[in-house]
Amino acid sequence: MSKSDPSSGGQQMWGGRFAAQPDDAMQAINASIDVDQRLWREDIEGSKAHAAMLAAQGIITAEDNAKIQAGLDQIAAEIAEGRFPFSRALEDIHLNIEARLTERIGEAGKRLHTGRSRNDQVATDFKLWTMRAAREAADGLRMLQKALVKRADEHADWIMPGFTHLQTAQPVTLGHHLLAYVAMAERDRVRLIGAALEAAWECPLGAAALAGSTFPIDRETTAHALGFHAPAGNSLDAVASRDFALAVLANLAIAATHLSRLAEEIVLWTSPQFGFATLSDAWSTGSSIMPQKRNPDAAELIRAKAARIGADFAALNAIVQKLPLAYAKDLQEDKQLTFNAFDNFALSLTSMIGMIETMTFNRAAMREAAARGYSTATDLADWLVRDLKTPFREAHEITGRIVRRAEQLGVRELVDLSLAEFQAVDPRINEAARALLTVEKSVESRDCYGGTAPERVREQIARWKENFK
Amino acid sequence: MSKSDPSSGGQQMWGGRFAAQPDDAMQAINASIDVDQRLWREDIEGSKAHAAMLAAQGIITAEDNAKIQAGLDQIAAEIAEGRFPFSRALEDIHLNIEARLTERIGEAGKRLHTGRSRNDQVATDFKLWTMRAAREAADGLRMLQKALVKRADEHADWIMPGFTHLQTAQPVTLGHHLLAYVAMAERDRVRLIGAALEAAWECPLGAAALAGSTFPIDRETTAHALGFHAPAGNSLDAVASRDFALAVLANLAIAATHLSRLAEEIVLWTSPQFGFATLSDAWSTGSSIMPQKRNPDAAELIRAKAARIGADFAALNAIVQKLPLAYAKDLQEDKQLTFNAFDNFALSLTSMIGMIETMTFNRAAMREAAARGYSTATDLADWLVRDLKTPFREAHEITGRIVRRAEQLGVRELVDLSLAEFQAVDPRINEAARALLTVEKSVESRDCYGGTAPERVREQIARWKENFK
Amino acid sequence: MSKSDPSSGGQQMWGGRFAAQPDDAMQAINASIDVDQRLWREDIEGSKAHAAMLAAQGIITAEDNAKIQAGLDQIAAEIAEGRFPFSRALEDIHLNIEARLTERIGEAGKRLHTGRSRNDQVATDFKLWTMRAAREAADGLRMLQKALVKRADEHADWIMPGFTHLQTAQPVTLGHHLLAYVAMAERDRVRLIGAALEAAWECPLGAAALAGSTFPIDRETTAHALGFHAPAGNSLDAVASRDFALAVLANLAIAATHLSRLAEEIVLWTSPQFGFATLSDAWSTGSSIMPQKRNPDAAELIRAKAARIGADFAALNAIVQKLPLAYAKDLQEDKQLTFNAFDNFALSLTSMIGMIETMTFNRAAMREAAARGYSTATDLADWLVRDLKTPFREAHEITGRIVRRAEQLGVRELVDLSLAEFQAVDPRINEAARALLTVEKSVESRDCYGGTAPERVREQIARWKENFK
Amino acid sequence: MSKSDPSSGGQQMWGGRFAAQPDDAMQAINASIDVDQRLWREDIEGSKAHAAMLAAQGIITAEDNAKIQAGLDQIAAEIAEGRFPFSRALEDIHLNIEARLTERIGEAGKRLHTGRSRNDQVATDFKLWTMRAAREAADGLRMLQKALVKRADEHADWIMPGFTHLQTAQPVTLGHHLLAYVAMAERDRVRLIGAALEAAWECPLGAAALAGSTFPIDRETTAHALGFHAPAGNSLDAVASRDFALAVLANLAIAATHLSRLAEEIVLWTSPQFGFATLSDAWSTGSSIMPQKRNPDAAELIRAKAARIGADFAALNAIVQKLPLAYAKDLQEDKQLTFNAFDNFALSLTSMIGMIETMTFNRAAMREAAARGYSTATDLADWLVRDLKTPFREAHEITGRIVRRAEQLGVRELVDLSLAEFQAVDPRINEAARALLTVEKSVESRDCYGGTAPERVREQIARWKENFK
Repeated sequence: MSKSDPSSGGQQMWGGRFAAQPDDAMQAINASIDVDQRLWREDIEGSKAHAAMLAAQGIITAEDNAKIQAGLDQIAAEIAEGRFPFSRALEDIHLNIEARLTERIGEAGKRLHTGRSRNDQVATDFKLWTMRAAREAADGLRMLQKALVKRADEHADWIMPGFTHLQTAQPVTLGHHLLAYVAMAERDRVRLIGAALEAAWECPLGAAALAGSTFPIDRETTAHALGFHAPAGNSLDAVASRDFALAVLANLAIAATHLSRLAEEIVLWTSPQFGFATLSDAWSTGSSIMPQKRNPDAAELIRAKAARIGADFAALNAIVQKLPLAYAKDLQEDKQLTFNAFDNFALSLTSMIGMIETMTFNRAAMREAAARGYSTATDLADWLVRDLKTPFREAHEITGRIVRRAEQLGVRELVDLSLAEFQAVDPRINEAARALLTVEKSVESRDCYGGTAPERVREQIARWKENFK
Repeated sequence: MSKSDPSSGGQQMWGGRFAAQPDDAMQAINASIDVDQRLWREDIEGSKAHAAMLAAQGIITAEDNAKIQAGLDQIAAEIAEGRFPFSRALEDIHLNIEARLTERIGEAGKRLHTGRSRNDQVATDFKLWTMRAAREAADGLRMLQKALVKRADEHADWIMPGFTHLQTAQPVTLGHHLLAYVAMAERDRVRLIGAALEAAWECPLGAAALAGSTFPIDRETTAHALGFHAPAGNSLDAVASRDFALAVLANLAIAATHLSRLAEEIVLWTSPQFGFATLSDAWSTGSSIMPQKRNPDAAELIRAKAARIGADFAALNAIVQKLPLAYAKDLQEDKQLTFNAFDNFALSLTSMIGMIETMTFNRAAMREAAARGYSTATDLADWLVRDLKTPFREAHEITGRIVRRAEQLGVRELVDLSLAEFQAVDPRINEAARALLTVEKSVESRDCYGGTAPERVREQIARWKENFK
Repeated sequence: MSKSDPSSGGQQMWGGRFAAQPDDAMQAINASIDVDQRLWREDIEGSKAHAAMLAAQGIITAEDNAKIQAGLDQIAAEIAEGRFPFSRALEDIHLNIEARLTERIGEAGKRLHTGRSRNDQVATDFKLWTMRAAREAADGLRMLQKALVKRADEHADWIMPGFTHLQTAQPVTLGHHLLAYVAMAERDRVRLIGAALEAAWECPLGAAALAGSTFPIDRETTAHALGFHAPAGNSLDAVASRDFALAVLANLAIAATHLSRLAEEIVLWTSPQFGFATLSDAWSTGSSIMPQKRNPDAAELIRAKAARIGADFAALNAIVQKLPLAYAKDLQEDKQLTFNAFDNFALSLTSMIGMIETMTFNRAAMREAAARGYSTATDLADWLVRDLKTPFREAHEITGRIVRRAEQLGVRELVDLSLAEFQAVDPRINEAARALLTVEKSVESRDCYGGTAPERVREQIARWKENFK
Repeated sequence: MSKSDPSSGGQQMWGGRFAAQPDDAMQAINASIDVDQRLWREDIEGSKAHAAMLAAQGIITAEDNAKIQAGLDQIAAEIAEGRFPFSRALEDIHLNIEARLTERIGEAGKRLHTGRSRNDQVATDFKLWTMRAAREAADGLRMLQKALVKRADEHADWIMPGFTHLQTAQPVTLGHHLLAYVAMAERDRVRLIGAALEAAWECPLGAAALAGSTFPIDRETTAHALGFHAPAGNSLDAVASRDFALAVLANLAIAATHLSRLAEEIVLWTSPQFGFATLSDAWSTGSSIMPQKRNPDAAELIRAKAARIGADFAALNAIVQKLPLAYAKDLQEDKQLTFNAFDNFALSLTSMIGMIETMTFNRAAMREAAARGYSTATDLADWLVRDLKTPFREAHEITGRIVRRAEQLGVRELVDLSLAEFQAVDPRINEAARALLTVEKSVESRDCYGGTAPERVREQIARWKENFK
């Protein structure tokens, strides 16, 4: 029922299956080579470090080591160039490479596995892969941040409605809005890098099957050679634990959730009801019949992928939850789930960067929407508190009465209400107060640290650019 | 980052991505042909029914219809034989087939899509696939039931411990234990068939893009031709809803949970601490160094797959939850999730049937374990209530005192305690009562309907066999 | 750390805990009375049926049975009136009631538990509760359907944009849109009722601890008395399985997903960018400062609750997945998860009905939005195919060129384009064709079964009203 | 349908609901006071810091500030002593406290809310609570580590079977096994503390509703006063983000997964089939009828709670995924999910510590099990490689032949096989090699760093004890 066999439709699902010999069925559920071949670089890297250490410790000869190193380099080249003869009968990437090595270099190849076991080997390879993937995802988030900051810089003072409950609340600037996602991505980066660093703390290699090795191996050396801080202090834990993958997946899921929120904004902004933004041709799909239509397919898929990445974490967490020590085959599913999650994240992130870099914004539509709903009412209340020392709750009541009056009169923005109308509610309100009630004045006045005032937004942009250097 | 490209390791994840042209990246996230080609049978079936109806209604000519029918049959043959030239540029299976049809039969091919849209087409194809897969999963469960009933029949009166909290509670028969999973599988079958029947209630075809068609199409005819009860009564619902897939996935997840429970039993039974059962060579993996070892890899993978199938439901449910009407691209992910779930279920079920059919049981070990822990204590209490009319709670206290005495004396089974010891606690206890306390008498006496008595187990086996006819 | 103790804030979480005696801590994790007291009606009902059967079978005397029946009735009254002295030391609702019964009626109370066990008792009680809750949820969905049909009837021909990808696709009618949710709710009802019926198939009572009973109990009689079809055929399955709850929770989760979709629509429709609808005061929250603002809080909470109900299913599914037969304490969590799910569903459904019944729609805003984006383009293409026999794909290209022209000219709706402009692209287009391109004509023309034409919508409304009788 | 009202059973679910006035129903879904009253300490702490800053900035008078500080202290006392009059009409903890403050101190109370909003207030309170809870959970894990290290110290050289696939693989020491969980808990601690530190990076207070404040507030001061590093740099992000809670919940879920694994071991170890350990009376439940039975209820509940905590993360992640900026009411559910997760985690951890501290181990049963299955076969293979320079893969084959011979002869342990038998397979095998094959020699020889040798285990114990100081 492989992806590449379109003829395996539903109709023959069971018939086909049960005609199979038990061996084939067992191989189908048991073999992991289709999935774990992606670990080839890590496997070769780990084997090279292991062999070098064995030689340094006198466990194998320098000559054998030289053969192993050369043989593994050749195999790496074979795989990179697509010339490697993968075999399903050899189950997984580890046996495929080892068998090929022995085929090429003979006896020496059979000595490579001394002092290690498939259990510590697979834990090490998968940990290395996950650490790298986490760091690369963090690098990808940095690229998204740069794209967002660039667009924020171009639109630092463009006014748009700030929503709560998707209702117009107060005017904000588009630059400010875009920077909110830069801040989220920064935390996502920190968490992913943090999870990679935590994973790098301890190296499983040398834990052997589960109880440690009887050979005089030097685990410090292999740990350092592979970029770990130290060898794992407990061999059972080393082969049985996958919390490093869970932590990375959880943080990836959170990052994907932030991408999903931004994708949701894009779907809203580009809908005709909002009309705030337009996707580029490259990042939207059209229709032959409505050439002007631009469907935000990529944004929608990003939302869906976020749900899937969350489910990948949930699945692996549920898998591990059931297991006593040490290794159990259930853990083999860790790789497919993790690879799927990173593939979907990579697709999502690339698409998001592409959309952000190329979308255009509609200044007039955003400004017009920002002024609706008496969005500057809070500014009047703040003036009453700030300049007249009216208690906060009273200021809100006064403002509420004015808003109600504006609504009765059908006035579109508070600033369009006559001074007389303001004073009919509270005679202390003066022209200076009324002048504060444009959306421009509103955003300018929210100039505390972290506020939406263009001045503050530009400060944050400068801070991010400094940060990116 | 495709499965078939082993060189796309983690190291180049982002570099590779970002070197891509936007068009490539967009195609990568947007194209679904790698996944949805599995719908080819359903797509051709749907198109043939649609074209026949268009001709019957005079919307296309009989001649065009004849060309379309023949062309689609030829395409079906091409795909079945692996000769079809799939194109990623044509995005999905629907456009691939339609483009090929026009290539083969010219103008008539361009008329096929009259009165329908990709939205109702994809909903129909996917619904048909899901209905079939659900029914085939039910058929597979029936095969599991047969395997279980056969083994239950062979072991109807073999005694084993019945556990609660994994503590020995009361003796049961292995036949009874195996039949418990037959009962679960029966409900799973009923639910999967039920979900398929509910899905068959309404056919989306003819809902068009979302609002219905302006052509005089006959939706009754196409619905019936495709095995549905009726056309969908609301076009928006027809293209936007995926609850048919959610219901099927939920029921599949529950069925997988039952397989996981049975897999958990197999892992326990075959562990040396239990020693109740031995897996056949074909369904276990060994080790070169410990040839006697039989790892229950397939059982462990079944547990892990159950977690994944649950997560597939969770992901699709989360995806749909976000969406206003009508179609959104998020829904494209429905197919990958559903296909994955069925593939994993098929692997799990095949493996489970294989294990069940070929595993052997250790009668002595099970019987020995069943007698531990004074597992027949309840039988004594029941006698006190039944024959002496002792109130239930008092009978429990008396029995408890006897068990404590047996423990002090180091007696292994209650039946081995002398009558004097029984009577020291309660003088009414007689030899007849003591004789009830073997594990054999215990299981025989639990002969109410649904109980573990061999007689009852054989009745249930007969009932199931009748049911299977 | 109970909900009712506000002083148990985070600061003392661990200190408080660890000061506790082991017994207290064990009681805290082990006692279920705070949760399972909601099963009191089912517990009393089950006990009454059991006692009556015991008497009929001569296992207890008629006199004892009379006392038990009367005692249980009095206890039911005590609980209903809030006078029952619940005790945590008695762990759960079952022991609380039984202890109270013995307190009231003496010896006879101690005979009630004859021939059953807590395992079959709790499975029966919880199954009864879940069946009822599922049926009541279905009843609640029927109330939602009635509310929706009423509003659809009032707005059968109000025109609004039909969206795909949240882009304007084709005009639809509001009545049609609302009826889409009636159709979803109907399938949700059917599934919930179906799950309740499946649960009613087999009664666990009499399965005893796990192996069946040694008493001559009549399980048919109790099963029928409690509304089940038959006693459970396998005692191990009867006490260990919770798929009845999983099936109900899954179907509840799907129903909640549909509520979430409708809630998402309400959030969008009531946002100022859409302006399609206004919530009533009772079902929105305002702000003292912006009295005109109506936050759709209830709709937002319905979205969030849907995610929670999905997670309740996921949690129970993961719990059961781990368990060998028969009963394990993990299963105790089934009740909290199920109760929470139904409570959140009830809140969501009530709120949705309240919002639907009282919200008002803005006909002008919806019609205006429906006409945007050349939403009638498909109608022109259909005319080309239908009346001129242009192949479908060609008709789309011709229409695309016309839409592009309309866009260049800044014409708002296709119908506003001059006939000359149409004919410049395709001279065959005539006045009759142009006249079809209003949104009113568009919806009228989509009159196939299930289409959005007001005529079809009214037919569906009539069908539903008939259905409700 | 509150927990404390047992009469609200399923039967009246809908009737009761719909009799309610809309206002009641809306209040039921909207009010959060039952849940968020647990934030009272954080709310008062935040308000005190805010008021002090307002006074320092001259926004309110020193006199008003003094009244506010005193008033809030009094309210804190009222709540701590259970005297506070909570009101549902006041919706949430924030309004309850503010209203009470104004009731007590008059006008000054109305000035407290100046320069902040409920959105930044609730984000700050909840963040503070979550940070504390995470640190306290880490403290709890430290207590678990101490309990485990103490038991490991007592059993550093007790031999037990090390399992893979729940099959006997190699002998390990109980001390080593217990320390594996200390290592997991250490990473869990680090992650929880890390998540708390990341949350402490930025303080939401002063972000106001969403756009920042117009008052000259000093956000640095309040941030530092509340233990944050800095004020949040983006006001939209500050009120709309909940990734701090997601990160904490994910790490809590992973920690709970580790508890679940240990709980699974306890269930296995205490089952009669293993017989490795016995729970204390305080941490097991018995049965009146089988007083010797000790059900591991707490361990089973810990497994179930782990599934629930994972689902709490999933639910919150799904909730946030849907939301555009800034605040939406969906986020209100964050607290219930987080509180539930921590409550369940606290119960689980306390129970686990209690069980670990008081359980006893059965040395003989563990040693006996460790010797089964020729568990020292690898030691022979290692000797062949190490002392005879046999290539690894060949050594495995030779050993395999010997194991097969031992099996044929029915010899229980390899060490019991005669030297002649060894030499019949490979004449190079000598008495010294044979002597290595006891389980005691096996664990001693696995003395590389992280290995199971008692010497290494004691080193690790010493390291942990140093670490705990």
